[in-house]
Amino acid sequence: MELLRKKIEEEGRDIGGGILKVDAFINHQIDAVLMHACGRALAEAFGARAGQVDKVLTAEISGIPPALMTALHLEVPMVYARKRRPVTMVEEPLRVATYSHTKGREVELLLSREFVRPGERVLIVDDFLATGRTILGLMDLVKQAGAVTVGVGALIEKPFEGGREALDKMGLPVEALASIVALEEGRVVLG
Amino acid sequence: MELLRKKIEEEGRDIGGGILKVDAFINHQIDAVLMHACGRALAEAFGARAGQVDKVLTAEISGIPPALMTALHLEVPMVYARKRRPVTMVEEPLRVATYSHTKGREVELLLSREFVRPGERVLIVDDFLATGRTILGLMDLVKQAGAVTVGVGALIEKPFEGGREALDKMGLPVEALASIVALEEGRVVLG
Repeated sequence: MELLRKKIEEEGRDIGGGILKVDAFINHQIDAVLMHACGRALAEAFGARAGQVDKVLTAEISGIPPALMTALHLEVPMVYARKRRPVTMVEEPLRVATYSHTKGREVELLLSREFVRPGERVLIVDDFLATGRTILGLMDLVKQAGAVTVGVGALIEKPFEGGREALDKMGLPVEALASIVALEEGRVVLG
Repeated sequence: MELLRKKIEEEGRDIGGGILKVDAFINHQIDAVLMHACGRALAEAFGARAGQVDKVLTAEISGIPPALMTALHLEVPMVYARKRRPVTMVEEPLRVATYSHTKGREVELLLSREFVRPGERVLIVDDFLATGRTILGLMDLVKQAGAVTVGVGALIEKPFEGGREALDKMGLPVEALASIVALEEGRVVLG
């Protein structure tokens, strides 16, 4: 998607350790108009191909904006898995352990059973598709809920981290709006 | 705002301790179409009255959806203060200590200096206006940045918790789309 690629070229920064700094438009400051356009692009990719989507699922925090905008265009609810149990999560939630690359430690994802129901078709959306661990964790929650993951959408993928390959092996439709093929010596190389 | 009031009547639940459970449409599962309409209502309230808004500011996590949708309609960037410092926050951020009612403990809010610049006009948006402590914390960050808070918008206010009064005293325009006048014996009473 040209708008996002352009923004990454202009404002994305390689800060080492395989981390792409995009906090000027994706995960601290957010370009709301760009995010709305990204949500439309993801909705169009899956609205046609995966048939009906009942719900969009993501993980807090930085998955919320792209997932919300995708849900808006699909006109379905969005659900975000939580990393801590808030007081409003009255019933025992579904749980899965996953690993956060940016946090450098294991985190747990929690989902209320009432918001993903058996048989529902779930589209998973996140900001990044890198190792795919968060997305595999979300797929585990969908499975625990008795629902079905119909596709995975991401703003940016880093195919060299293996997540795309893992999802492809499962035969799952995967769409990313921009692909980073390398982060080298401060330079961001788009695919 | 009628749509939001109706949703609160139908799906909001008083779970005791002054906590209104709205996680079916605001802070776990999100009604994306409703949130888009709420963002439009907040943008209209401030677009006309407070003049130009340069940026919408909120705090993670549940402030993100309403702030993002308000920013979309105002066509300005949205920034969310973080509660933990991510690896992408390279420079020392602005910091303020505040108190989270739902967490029951003090939390810190962090903001990168580069995303709120001196002189900018900032609209603060959050899901709830209750005690106002989070919003006062955000106003402190705006002041530290040398910027100006031009208004405060919230989806739901609980005027009996004093936040509205504190902000009114400061002469700040405050808009809430729904007002809860009481939570009593499981019943949610709208104003």
